[in-house]
Amino acid sequence: MPTAPEAVILLSGGLDSTTLLAIARAEGYALNALTFDYGQRHKVELRAAAAVARAIGVRRHAVVPIDAQVFAGSALTDAAVPVPKDRDLARPEASIPVTYVPARNTIFLAYALAWAEVLGAQHLFIGVNALDYSGYPDCRPEFIAAFERLANLATKAAVEGGQRLRIHTPLIQLTKAQIVARGLALGVDYAHTSTCYDPDAEGRACGHCDACQLRLAGFRANGIADPAPYR
Amino acid sequence: MPTAPEAVILLSGGLDSTTLLAIARAEGYALNALTFDYGQRHKVELRAAAAVARAIGVRRHAVVPIDAQVFAGSALTDAAVPVPKDRDLARPEASIPVTYVPARNTIFLAYALAWAEVLGAQHLFIGVNALDYSGYPDCRPEFIAAFERLANLATKAAVEGGQRLRIHTPLIQLTKAQIVARGLALGVDYAHTSTCYDPDAEGRACGHCDACQLRLAGFRANGIADPAPYR
Repeated sequence: MPTAPEAVILLSGGLDSTTLLAIARAEGYALNALTFDYGQRHKVELRAAAAVARAIGVRRHAVVPIDAQVFAGSALTDAAVPVPKDRDLARPEASIPVTYVPARNTIFLAYALAWAEVLGAQHLFIGVNALDYSGYPDCRPEFIAAFERLANLATKAAVEGGQRLRIHTPLIQLTKAQIVARGLALGVDYAHTSTCYDPDAEGRACGHCDACQLRLAGFRANGIADPAPYR
Repeated sequence: MPTAPEAVILLSGGLDSTTLLAIARAEGYALNALTFDYGQRHKVELRAAAAVARAIGVRRHAVVPIDAQVFAGSALTDAAVPVPKDRDLARPEASIPVTYVPARNTIFLAYALAWAEVLGAQHLFIGVNALDYSGYPDCRPEFIAAFERLANLATKAAVEGGQRLRIHTPLIQLTKAQIVARGLALGVDYAHTSTCYDPDAEGRACGHCDACQLRLAGFRANGIADPAPYR
């Protein structure tokens, strides 16, 4: 039996990255999950990420702390900026949402690249989505393509060893309903996952922020109830 | 008088980045120095960076901790790998040096990009050098160009605000002797700086690692003694 190729999978513990992890498992990769602790409001995500990593079964799970001072100014890290609630998501975004975190995916992918080189992994998985989050510049296909190009100029493994790095974005063109359908088909238990931008201390979701609205609509479209706890 | 444009300058406290900071000051930028604490052997660099930032005069100096676990395997962070001494640097590198840290400049530039967006800065300065360190893939002009391209796809400031980000690499084609000459012309006091890969607890340089050899040759070529302490 050939050895499973090593992959680094960015895992937040939310619906998208949990589905991503299940897809990478189904495709036969050895799973190295990478989670960031960046002082986000949803600390509960870290517990969710650990539960998901256990449930799906990973080879390694690293939780890397990221200093939050450089992320000042985002609703996800700054208690002074309120999380938007009950917005009409059918209307196109007038501008990039306030929940945007400066250069977040650039930093996440940079760490993933470093870990991939240490592990000898040539595959990175990131659960970006260009449809639901079109307001985030670092979720677009052109950003991912530019990072893949950078990665193949950046490391000893790529430049000297000829180990070309590939960034996998299997969710990038899926709707939330399609992501949920894909995960259900792969047997994902979404009860473990946490998506809400503003959960309570017990990890129960608010049901009204952008992320909750999109998630709930995704389950509705599949005709089933979201198994995660809401308050 | 027009306001000085904000710039983020990567400052290690070594000879190159200190010269870089002096160049950015001479070019009229408002200086925001960014230093990383990544568990490197040369902790003494952090003291040097603080002394340099004070001596040259910066608006802000941020020291960002970076988790060292992803950097495992480099001589600079792993006590089990000895720092090479007294190598013949006139001979071309057979391969990338063991002092290479996986994806280091990618991670450094990613943080710099995040801080630049928070500050509204459109200028990043990094002291990479393609001549002396040709063995590092992430010091080459093509890597820097790829990162600049990525940066202008990555942030809200660039994509929505039209604030194009520029990466400045004024040292990239200079020899060590030229870097020293440039700094001396700008009045840099190199006594504060620390370059050695293997300093002692008092911060005194070894005089034999690659970095010390290059530095000492740079001062010799200018006909003056290195004012930094050696053991």
